[in-house]
Amino acid sequence: MTLHSEIFEQPERLASLLDRQKQTVIDIAKAIQSHNVSYAFLAARGTSDNAGRYANYLWGAHNGLPLALAAPSLFTYYQSPPRLQNALVVGVSQSGQSPDIVSVLEEGRRQGCLTLAITNLSDSPLAKAADYVLDIQAGEEKAVAATKTYTAELMAIAMLSAALNNSEERWLELGNIPKWAEQTLALDSAIARISERFRYMSQCVVLGRGFNYATAFEWALKLKELTYIIAEPYSSADFQHGPIAMVEGGFPILAVAPTGKVQESMRDMLTRLRQQQDAELVVISDDKDVLSLAQSQIQLPPQIPEWLTPLVSIVPAQLFACHLTKVKGYDTEKPRSITKVTETH
Amino acid sequence: MTLHSEIFEQPERLASLLDRQKQTVIDIAKAIQSHNVSYAFLAARGTSDNAGRYANYLWGAHNGLPLALAAPSLFTYYQSPPRLQNALVVGVSQSGQSPDIVSVLEEGRRQGCLTLAITNLSDSPLAKAADYVLDIQAGEEKAVAATKTYTAELMAIAMLSAALNNSEERWLELGNIPKWAEQTLALDSAIARISERFRYMSQCVVLGRGFNYATAFEWALKLKELTYIIAEPYSSADFQHGPIAMVEGGFPILAVAPTGKVQESMRDMLTRLRQQQDAELVVISDDKDVLSLAQSQIQLPPQIPEWLTPLVSIVPAQLFACHLTKVKGYDTEKPRSITKVTETH
Repeated sequence: MTLHSEIFEQPERLASLLDRQKQTVIDIAKAIQSHNVSYAFLAARGTSDNAGRYANYLWGAHNGLPLALAAPSLFTYYQSPPRLQNALVVGVSQSGQSPDIVSVLEEGRRQGCLTLAITNLSDSPLAKAADYVLDIQAGEEKAVAATKTYTAELMAIAMLSAALNNSEERWLELGNIPKWAEQTLALDSAIARISERFRYMSQCVVLGRGFNYATAFEWALKLKELTYIIAEPYSSADFQHGPIAMVEGGFPILAVAPTGKVQESMRDMLTRLRQQQDAELVVISDDKDVLSLAQSQIQLPPQIPEWLTPLVSIVPAQLFACHLTKVKGYDTEKPRSITKVTETH
Repeated sequence: MTLHSEIFEQPERLASLLDRQKQTVIDIAKAIQSHNVSYAFLAARGTSDNAGRYANYLWGAHNGLPLALAAPSLFTYYQSPPRLQNALVVGVSQSGQSPDIVSVLEEGRRQGCLTLAITNLSDSPLAKAADYVLDIQAGEEKAVAATKTYTAELMAIAMLSAALNNSEERWLELGNIPKWAEQTLALDSAIARISERFRYMSQCVVLGRGFNYATAFEWALKLKELTYIIAEPYSSADFQHGPIAMVEGGFPILAVAPTGKVQESMRDMLTRLRQQQDAELVVISDDKDVLSLAQSQIQLPPQIPEWLTPLVSIVPAQLFACHLTKVKGYDTEKPRSITKVTETH
């Protein structure tokens, strides 16, 4: 099964990316620092858009760099691209082929902005349109549902953050990612058992906040692509502003809540959902108190720095989606209605 | 019923806002033009965040102004606000009271940015934190589900766009909004009949693109708040990148597809969903060909300029959500689990 084996490739791919692309990333960071960059303007779709959500929090919190997620249709259908004054224009795409994402980079270059492609294909149209290319080197991804290219995109984004900070401590922390991912893969059979409970789940909400807002979106996307469940992602704050009204007894809520600055806010939300609204909870966390709120508990390795938790916490979420696909009797390799490369305009 | 009557107040409220706040908006536009603004940095949650999605497209397409949607938790939990160099910092909130949105404006002011509050309460903490206040003057909104404050926020955003363009033609176009909204309200009983068909709908997808990406999000939010349906909004492009796999025969898709530059892309998607995937469609459009794809058709007035379609197309969507709430036997005035003012940190 390709999907499952690609999930298991991740520790090795991430170690290799960290090793082989460190100098390239340092060079890109220097180019950014030598330009007058006020903010990042990032274009992506699907899984890569979720990697962009991680960049939004990480580059904001660690590098003081605000990030705007591009509306690619402004560049294609409306032909009225905004003035990208002082922007670092970034395109993220596994295949580097979607015309709308390429057009954002081309326009950035036309306006004289510094442009960066983060892609798995270094000779793709996206790479050719960019001043700098960060090749995530994840190897060919055969499964339609992206897994190893997602964590490689997160790693690329995290490496760039460490390089912009010029922080040896952060580079050292990055070096532990392959080990933590490996430890998480050891939960494979436990997660297979947990997934059985959700054989007949047809809809759910996925919660995450801060750095793991991205994880909630990516977990939900894997469930939609593979298991055809209506899985809707939210930050716990946005969820309170209306959608929480949907929750009735037994409603399934999947949550990513590792130790960190937003943990208390996530714990308060999960406590309310379990104790007052009688929700059914699946929680990914390293914290025993948070885990104890859930009927289904997925325990992360301890002491992962919060900024790196998204690279580890998505791994059990990928396994959950993969096993649930089999439990529901679907094909993990051939999801209906979607193909590996989607070209949108 | 307050919700229904507030939906019906909209033509009058919009006409009054346009009349009474034009000069204020022109003054705000002058302040923006006299500052060195590279991009807008906008903070909002819930319904107001959907108004922010409209600003993202409109200010980008008509005013060349890129927009970043703020991640408020960077300002509260992480205490690492990004450097907001050359940003116009905008907070949008009906109540003007959510501490996380207020904190974004306070930080913008601290960093010397131009700050703007768009709010229904001109003496709220949000208004007090801003250099400029655009009071949307929608009158007290009593229903928990926001309707008239949403269209008033859109009107405020559209007026600011017209003022930045200094375009008399666009101001004239804005003057037709109350009439078009009024014409749409005449569909009330037809929409009540359509809503009966969805008595047992428990989940759906809502599609919109370009300017009406915001409408898809706001329609979905009303359904979640009022009818407890899992309603997930997408642009037709993002939907193709994975989530389309969820659709099986009879799956309900609600779509907003008025005449305009993204109409062809929406029509292609709806044709595929109906003819190949046998979906159940509810379509809001002025175009007979697009409407003819749907089992349930909601016809907009003709010849609304595309940039203003979100102010009109949300009205029948609000009516649909309101009537479906009654059809399902729920209380339109007291949605469970949510309150009028939600304070998030």
